[in-house]
Amino acid sequence: MTEYRLTPLAKSLPATVPFVGPETQERAMGRPFEARLGANENVFGPSPHAIKAMAEAGHWMYGDPESHELRTALAAHHGTTVDHIIVGEGIDGLLGYVVRLFVGQGDAVVTSDGAYPTFNYHVAGYGGTLHKVPYREDHEDPAALFAKAGEVDAKLVYLANPDNPMGSWHRGEDIAAAMDALPVQSLLVLDEAYVETAPEGTALPLAWGDPRVIRMRTFSKAYGMAGARVGYAIAAPELITAFHKVRNHFGMNRSAQAGALAALADQAWLTEVKDRVAQARTRIAQIAQENGLLPLPSATNFVTLDCGHDGAFAKAVLDGLVARGIFVRMPFVAPQNRCIRISCGTDDDLNALAAALPDAIAAAKKG
Amino acid sequence: MTEYRLTPLAKSLPATVPFVGPETQERAMGRPFEARLGANENVFGPSPHAIKAMAEAGHWMYGDPESHELRTALAAHHGTTVDHIIVGEGIDGLLGYVVRLFVGQGDAVVTSDGAYPTFNYHVAGYGGTLHKVPYREDHEDPAALFAKAGEVDAKLVYLANPDNPMGSWHRGEDIAAAMDALPVQSLLVLDEAYVETAPEGTALPLAWGDPRVIRMRTFSKAYGMAGARVGYAIAAPELITAFHKVRNHFGMNRSAQAGALAALADQAWLTEVKDRVAQARTRIAQIAQENGLLPLPSATNFVTLDCGHDGAFAKAVLDGLVARGIFVRMPFVAPQNRCIRISCGTDDDLNALAAALPDAIAAAKKG
Repeated sequence: MTEYRLTPLAKSLPATVPFVGPETQERAMGRPFEARLGANENVFGPSPHAIKAMAEAGHWMYGDPESHELRTALAAHHGTTVDHIIVGEGIDGLLGYVVRLFVGQGDAVVTSDGAYPTFNYHVAGYGGTLHKVPYREDHEDPAALFAKAGEVDAKLVYLANPDNPMGSWHRGEDIAAAMDALPVQSLLVLDEAYVETAPEGTALPLAWGDPRVIRMRTFSKAYGMAGARVGYAIAAPELITAFHKVRNHFGMNRSAQAGALAALADQAWLTEVKDRVAQARTRIAQIAQENGLLPLPSATNFVTLDCGHDGAFAKAVLDGLVARGIFVRMPFVAPQNRCIRISCGTDDDLNALAAALPDAIAAAKKG
Repeated sequence: MTEYRLTPLAKSLPATVPFVGPETQERAMGRPFEARLGANENVFGPSPHAIKAMAEAGHWMYGDPESHELRTALAAHHGTTVDHIIVGEGIDGLLGYVVRLFVGQGDAVVTSDGAYPTFNYHVAGYGGTLHKVPYREDHEDPAALFAKAGEVDAKLVYLANPDNPMGSWHRGEDIAAAMDALPVQSLLVLDEAYVETAPEGTALPLAWGDPRVIRMRTFSKAYGMAGARVGYAIAAPELITAFHKVRNHFGMNRSAQAGALAALADQAWLTEVKDRVAQARTRIAQIAQENGLLPLPSATNFVTLDCGHDGAFAKAVLDGLVARGIFVRMPFVAPQNRCIRISCGTDDDLNALAAALPDAIAAAKKG
């Protein structure tokens, strides 16, 4: 073989990565970060019951390919039936499956300019054509997304509520109302990864079986199990069944299944974590204000800070923080790239942020 | 939306599953199996160091998307460089990626009649056309596979060595010699999942960067970590790079990465497990012979038993074992379906097998 016979699509794709991991940066720097505040992980971690369940899951056995116990518990938790639920390798994995099911070469997909790079990566990976609409006052713009979907005959429309990277949110009923204008031939992929830390009323209030939407949830954020890779989607049974055509049936880690089941059962821990997240958001906002940065309102486990100037300035602040051992990230497109994004951390993490931020800003101002 | 707008390919696929999990059978039976001997899991489990590493991995953090530490250790272990290695969600996940990279609608792929259903599932899932050659005396037939590849212009040829489900094997040098007839335009996907329990000389003795082949290895078998979902592939860097175009970059469970790293470092444990596997194979063979069944030679962590009659009889024996609480599986096609397949187990597991087998055979003979 002189040249690998990849498909024309595979040949055309770049070897890319939606996000550079902090470990990659640490290897390049030659030292670990002092505070890991860039990936919207949940430093408060999973329920102790989940940790115990993961340790005792029996690593020698394959996981149940149906994730039946977990799906049953999720169905009970959400007041629906097990055939409405699919479990997968994080929302990232589930987004890959839904794109694969719907998107072929040249098919239109709509998202916002600046939204989740991993979704865009999957769309490109299956040959889809992305159409983007801008944010509106640092919020996702459902009306514009749905109008664009009609214009380009989109098969999928991706919307995150609450939003990453801006931390902003819409009331669920407002999205439901906007869906009146969603074209009948477009499926809404609603990423609710951060919904547990959002105000009451943020979740979409429609029936779980509404055929116009598939909702994505995760154990990576409020449940504190990003390392476990457990996401789930809720939709009409007909759509859930389609996942069984393409998914990696034995892809789920057995201890992760057990951990998610235990985490779901410990809602008291979730409540405590939500309190800690709220406190950390307040502290991040204070630190920002003490340094002349504007914290944007957040329904998530991170706070986006408006650095008050252009993208180059925000990038300089971010680089200054990274150089001082604080792992943070920023939005990718203007005008949101005037901001940096700080995940909630422990008191120690945020003390480290408070110590590093003045110097990072001063250095950025010097240029 | 009245009907989901799946791609034509997705619409054409059945909602299928390569293997029914034992948990599904247990739910249907209403009771757990007494012995779990059907999925070629390794009941002796992972190194205690791996178990400890998994418990302490920090579940709140995403795994390193590059699996850099693990790939570095694997490269050192195999005497190659890190750019020859990709880590993925089990061999199942990696097979999905390699099929996606190479196989489009109507592309030809060659495998043997009876080989790994999950590979076939992926080929169907990307629209490929499978061409199968029969086994030869209960062995994979590399010469026939490679000849068929030339005949149909196959992009991929799948071959497992040692083989599942028959437990047979070829010497690595014999496969290397047969590869002289592998068409230059065909990539050999060599599944070496069971190579650690095979005789010296079973692994393919070619350079890791040989562009004609990609080799698949796993922590699910001899390393005892099936639940963790850690597989890896070794190939020329140019091919490894292609995986970065399509893989789920954040798909790896963090504790699984840490566990695999610790498992690899504990080669003493692996040696002990290999001894226990060899002892269990001997015991399974004895139990088979005491019951008039013929144990086939095995290089794996299971033993395939020739039941001496047709597929219907073997199926009846299998059903009898399952009904008596022993989880076992059988090959899917004639004439290999005259056999059942017994994974290595603990003494208790094999005592349960010994107790159940005479009744299962007697019931099968009654019809």
